[in-house]
Amino acid sequence: MSSARKLVRVLSGDPEKVSPVWLMRQAGRYLPEYRKLRAEAGSFWTMALTPKYAAEITLQPIRRFGFDAAILFSDILTVPEALGQKVTFTEGEGPSLTPVTSAKGFDEDQEHWSSYFEPVYEALRLTRGALGPETTLLGFAGAPWTLATYLAAGVGGDEQKAAKLWAYRDPKGFGYLLDILGECVAFHLIRQLDAGADAVQIFDSWASGLPMPLFEQVVIEPTKKIVRAVRAARPEAKIIGFPRAATLAGYEIYVQATGVDAVSLDTAAPMRWAAENLGCVLQGNLDPIALIAGGAALDRAVDDILEATAGRAHIFNLGHGILPETPIAHVEQLLKRIRG
Amino acid sequence: MSSARKLVRVLSGDPEKVSPVWLMRQAGRYLPEYRKLRAEAGSFWTMALTPKYAAEITLQPIRRFGFDAAILFSDILTVPEALGQKVTFTEGEGPSLTPVTSAKGFDEDQEHWSSYFEPVYEALRLTRGALGPETTLLGFAGAPWTLATYLAAGVGGDEQKAAKLWAYRDPKGFGYLLDILGECVAFHLIRQLDAGADAVQIFDSWASGLPMPLFEQVVIEPTKKIVRAVRAARPEAKIIGFPRAATLAGYEIYVQATGVDAVSLDTAAPMRWAAENLGCVLQGNLDPIALIAGGAALDRAVDDILEATAGRAHIFNLGHGILPETPIAHVEQLLKRIRG
Repeated sequence: MSSARKLVRVLSGDPEKVSPVWLMRQAGRYLPEYRKLRAEAGSFWTMALTPKYAAEITLQPIRRFGFDAAILFSDILTVPEALGQKVTFTEGEGPSLTPVTSAKGFDEDQEHWSSYFEPVYEALRLTRGALGPETTLLGFAGAPWTLATYLAAGVGGDEQKAAKLWAYRDPKGFGYLLDILGECVAFHLIRQLDAGADAVQIFDSWASGLPMPLFEQVVIEPTKKIVRAVRAARPEAKIIGFPRAATLAGYEIYVQATGVDAVSLDTAAPMRWAAENLGCVLQGNLDPIALIAGGAALDRAVDDILEATAGRAHIFNLGHGILPETPIAHVEQLLKRIRG
Repeated sequence: MSSARKLVRVLSGDPEKVSPVWLMRQAGRYLPEYRKLRAEAGSFWTMALTPKYAAEITLQPIRRFGFDAAILFSDILTVPEALGQKVTFTEGEGPSLTPVTSAKGFDEDQEHWSSYFEPVYEALRLTRGALGPETTLLGFAGAPWTLATYLAAGVGGDEQKAAKLWAYRDPKGFGYLLDILGECVAFHLIRQLDAGADAVQIFDSWASGLPMPLFEQVVIEPTKKIVRAVRAARPEAKIIGFPRAATLAGYEIYVQATGVDAVSLDTAAPMRWAAENLGCVLQGNLDPIALIAGGAALDRAVDDILEATAGRAHIFNLGHGILPETPIAHVEQLLKRIRG
């Protein structure tokens, strides 16, 4: 039976005349209603781990723009927290953790994971209850490699050095870290599906700059295991992978080897190349800075993507998260250009 | 007549049984003799613009390691300075400039460029005089796009937002900026060749993340013009291009369209793919973090590159600059692995 949700239909491989659309970080600082609620909640973690806040923030961009999908307001660093690794968010500085050199002390108790993640699942249930039947609800998690870059360096951002060094010097210990992270990620994705998510996205935000043997070891293998574990538990699960700024060869292997239903492309991966070379549903890949620029440049960039994906199962999205300074009028312009 | 310099022979397309080798940023902070001279000179600009310092620093890694090429110690931001844009280096913070929104006030007087750059040319002459006949001397410049990212943002590093916004909103004004930068870059490369450089490298360090139409506009077209201008003036000029972290499709177009003799690959671009798909001399692409790691991981990473480039004209190098914490013993291990 065909779903009432356009994005779910597309994830099954059926092209739509008008691509469904959502934007990474669509619940975020570019929205005045988000900034207002942020001021009220006080801290990022309070927002993310209080179901009524998380649900409300998730719903804000749907009310304003009618995106085809709501993505739960949460953070990829919930997984390290569930594993007992404290994460602190400092305003204007991003997250910080105590750097680790071993995963031996990680909390592997699934009961603890369940109770830690419970507010996330409650937020999903609240969101699903408030969404219209046509709107897809997405859950997500960070991929083990990206989480490992935070755990090894103790900071967020594009800081792969510590994790790479660990992977090169101690492949066995690093493999153990990736395995534990992968188990917790799979656990979390399955329970997000159970709590009402129609599909889940795996964010490997720092998948760039990896030599192919390392890419296969730290991106492909862990992701393959997660997809297998999720499908073993929930055979109908729809999974989107986002190995951001992988090489084109990396994207090809990722799609072939991991078994994701869809792949999300970064700003540079040519959508025309993807339509010809990747045998899965495509998502992406508008440059968030074209969305800030607006005007003719935005229209042209949108048209490029729509032309490249015509007749293909495609979900319109950005190549990276929407930036705080994005004018709301440009999001409206984008939707008008896509939907006519 | 075949050159006495192995790296020059390879740049002509002739494979060597043992690939010539040099490392980006090989004259730098990982060397105690560099740190000593840095303390004596006081500031980065004093080192770069005082011929005896610049030549001495250029020679240091050749004396210690016998690399096949010396690359002149200088900085890509000499070009903005020649154009009248003051660049300040603050210890631990990187360069800063006054952000520009127009290239209209730039100093286009070639006499001024000549006199500004003269210490660089003198440093090249001093270096050439001190190098053995077997050692190749390389000059270099930043590519217009990468220079534009610094000029638009006023800071260095991976900060493309301001330049991208400018390119999207004002393609004509941004094209004018790229043209002026390109003229100064071509001027500087030609005169570096005249001052004794055997070949030159064009660094497009921030070529990642660009949608293909923008990549063609800001990377391909300006580089094509520079190569054409340099070849028109010095038909025998050997040019290496480094569009760092371009997509694989981007590398293909770059090699086909710009006419560079060699392309330098970042850490992630698979050398095996390059050997099959790029019809030019290949350079790169060891992960600088594998060089920090050392041990079996380093040997394996070196072997991967050597196997992928066997029988091909190849220059061994890193995929990005050597990092300050790199142990000297690992550079020795690298050279032993390559040279046997």
